[in-house]
Amino acid sequence: MLGNCLENVRKNVPLVHNITNYVTVNDVANVILACGGSPIMSDEPEDVEDITTICGGLNINIGTLNKRSIEGMHRAGKKAGELHHVILLDPVGAGASVLRTDTANDLMKEIHFTAIRGNISEIKTLALGSGTTKGVDADVADAVTEDNLDNAIRFVKNFASQTGSIVAITGAIDLVSDDKRCFVIRNGRPEMGKITGTGCQLSGMMTAFLVANPDALLEAAAAAVCTMGLSGEIGWSHMQKGDGNSTYRNRIIDAVFNMTGEMLDRGAKYEIR
Amino acid sequence: MLGNCLENVRKNVPLVHNITNYVTVNDVANVILACGGSPIMSDEPEDVEDITTICGGLNINIGTLNKRSIEGMHRAGKKAGELHHVILLDPVGAGASVLRTDTANDLMKEIHFTAIRGNISEIKTLALGSGTTKGVDADVADAVTEDNLDNAIRFVKNFASQTGSIVAITGAIDLVSDDKRCFVIRNGRPEMGKITGTGCQLSGMMTAFLVANPDALLEAAAAAVCTMGLSGEIGWSHMQKGDGNSTYRNRIIDAVFNMTGEMLDRGAKYEIR
Amino acid sequence: MLGNCLENVRKNVPLVHNITNYVTVNDVANVILACGGSPIMSDEPEDVEDITTICGGLNINIGTLNKRSIEGMHRAGKKAGELHHVILLDPVGAGASVLRTDTANDLMKEIHFTAIRGNISEIKTLALGSGTTKGVDADVADAVTEDNLDNAIRFVKNFASQTGSIVAITGAIDLVSDDKRCFVIRNGRPEMGKITGTGCQLSGMMTAFLVANPDALLEAAAAAVCTMGLSGEIGWSHMQKGDGNSTYRNRIIDAVFNMTGEMLDRGAKYEIR
Repeated sequence: MLGNCLENVRKNVPLVHNITNYVTVNDVANVILACGGSPIMSDEPEDVEDITTICGGLNINIGTLNKRSIEGMHRAGKKAGELHHVILLDPVGAGASVLRTDTANDLMKEIHFTAIRGNISEIKTLALGSGTTKGVDADVADAVTEDNLDNAIRFVKNFASQTGSIVAITGAIDLVSDDKRCFVIRNGRPEMGKITGTGCQLSGMMTAFLVANPDALLEAAAAAVCTMGLSGEIGWSHMQKGDGNSTYRNRIIDAVFNMTGEMLDRGAKYEIR
Repeated sequence: MLGNCLENVRKNVPLVHNITNYVTVNDVANVILACGGSPIMSDEPEDVEDITTICGGLNINIGTLNKRSIEGMHRAGKKAGELHHVILLDPVGAGASVLRTDTANDLMKEIHFTAIRGNISEIKTLALGSGTTKGVDADVADAVTEDNLDNAIRFVKNFASQTGSIVAITGAIDLVSDDKRCFVIRNGRPEMGKITGTGCQLSGMMTAFLVANPDALLEAAAAAVCTMGLSGEIGWSHMQKGDGNSTYRNRIIDAVFNMTGEMLDRGAKYEIR
Repeated sequence: MLGNCLENVRKNVPLVHNITNYVTVNDVANVILACGGSPIMSDEPEDVEDITTICGGLNINIGTLNKRSIEGMHRAGKKAGELHHVILLDPVGAGASVLRTDTANDLMKEIHFTAIRGNISEIKTLALGSGTTKGVDADVADAVTEDNLDNAIRFVKNFASQTGSIVAITGAIDLVSDDKRCFVIRNGRPEMGKITGTGCQLSGMMTAFLVANPDALLEAAAAAVCTMGLSGEIGWSHMQKGDGNSTYRNRIIDAVFNMTGEMLDRGAKYEIR
């Protein structure tokens, strides 16, 4: 089932408009290409409406935001909404600064997001109006664990219901939920946290998966999460003596590039709750 | 002959000023270093005139343009023109948005470009005033093929004549022309399209080649195209099980780094029409 | 001793706020992760004060500066100073344009930097008010050599005394000094100059080292320089046939990732003058 979602990306080659931070933007572009999509980046307010019009999906990531790009996010999101495109929000660092928290909240007021993906601290900030985000990483005290899993599932379903969006909270255990079902995913490796931008990459890739699977959005979002996590496992298995986080970064994108639907179906580790 | 152009880059270490998009900028810098040049990036209008003055060439790439950087492009281009520097235009996404098309057209009105490099959709947009650019990739319907090659050669020669620039249209078959001669180049691999920014990299590298070969500009531009394409072939030949587009990206730049004039002369596949 | 400084970074996981250029920002983030720190990037004036508040150190790099980011540098620096955070200046291209020279000088007037790191041309520009910076690389005529080493040590000690900052001048021979002692470091490889951003990476990493070693700032700065240089040596020893500057870039960050305190103590090549 999830493998089929990946194959649809390769078949449909969805064009994804990204307004994203300049730290990880190159990796976002390459991972969208790796999974079968086609990326385009544009954040200038006078450029974004035309660009988003020719795309199938819009990925808004608020890392390294500035006043110009925030205006670009609003204009692109409004236009993409009118065109019924897929729109994804990655609230990087929400809770870490007033500007980031406010920007995420403002965007959520004006734009209906197909999906929202972040770490637990960022999503809690959006849900509860405040958070304890430690920079761009989740606060340890917030982490989803086997012990608090029932609570976390309740939380993500509630937030999905409240927003009408698919909500993906990623970390050691990933949760992907609409208001009814929640995929609990246990792919991935802790070493992925030693590479900048695996979250940003996932958001770009998830947008491509959603565009290519309009009739199975929840499965598409879960398939993107499993693809990233499984690629982290496969990439790690190829690591050799002397390799470190920089080579690991390449190996993960390489694994996405070589992933087939069958491999994904075999390697995805999830339960539906 | 083309190998000599590469050797001149390594000998002269041309300093290239790049106003380029934030998606692929790191790769542009590393490929300019790989071929023997020295890159510097600056887009702030109040910085660009000083920076371009100490350089030998200016590479203007309009991907992820914004109003500030557009002003930077104009000021840098004007100054570089006064100093008779090499100036190259890479009209990324011309045809995909009004702002990009207008920006490319405005720049062409005010600045005389030594060379213009883009995909067929982008160049058609500049030549015909409109296009069918699909994001930052060429539209399939536009592609240069063996079947329409004669027409495409006529088109590129005409556009070169009209602009007084060397025009490089890159794709499965690459065309590099002044108004009299056209290099038809068949190096490269289709998998290069699965990496973001091989076109941007080529533009940066071509600027370095042009600066280092003032008396053989057409050959220099063709040599840069062959270096990129041949590096794509060599890089691919080094791919191992599990490698994908991210590793391929590194291997291409590595191949540029290791290219000698002799290797280029042996591996370049072109005819002159 | 230096190995202990590295171990403190891994133990304390310092959060480093970076206002840095968009060319090498991804590598800066990954090398900070590689050495054990945690990076966050933000340059919007309305965002930087909140972000720097939750961090332990601030790394200001003036490459690809613009008027907005310059304001961000000042506001972040002022706030970080009030909080007695570590603050580092990397004056990329000072001497190459009036805007860069003025920006570096203005920042030094308003902010007390814990450390300043640059190549000899950039540091000379700051010290003498003018320079011969060739783009972002040091001018050959400026280079620190065995022949002019005594003079260079006197110069760096004087500038450290004058500014009250630790001053690191990096090149073939690296000098790291407060006003009393000067580490003369001979790690590294010339091929590091064929990769964009090894200097930027070092500045990010040095900020992390300084935050994690408040009681041994000079040793911390020297340890960062030795870590980078030794990683360049180790990375180079892993190079295989066909590898070039792009793979070397990955191998250096990988070597930082795998460096232990013991390895650093064994491999660091320095004398104290």
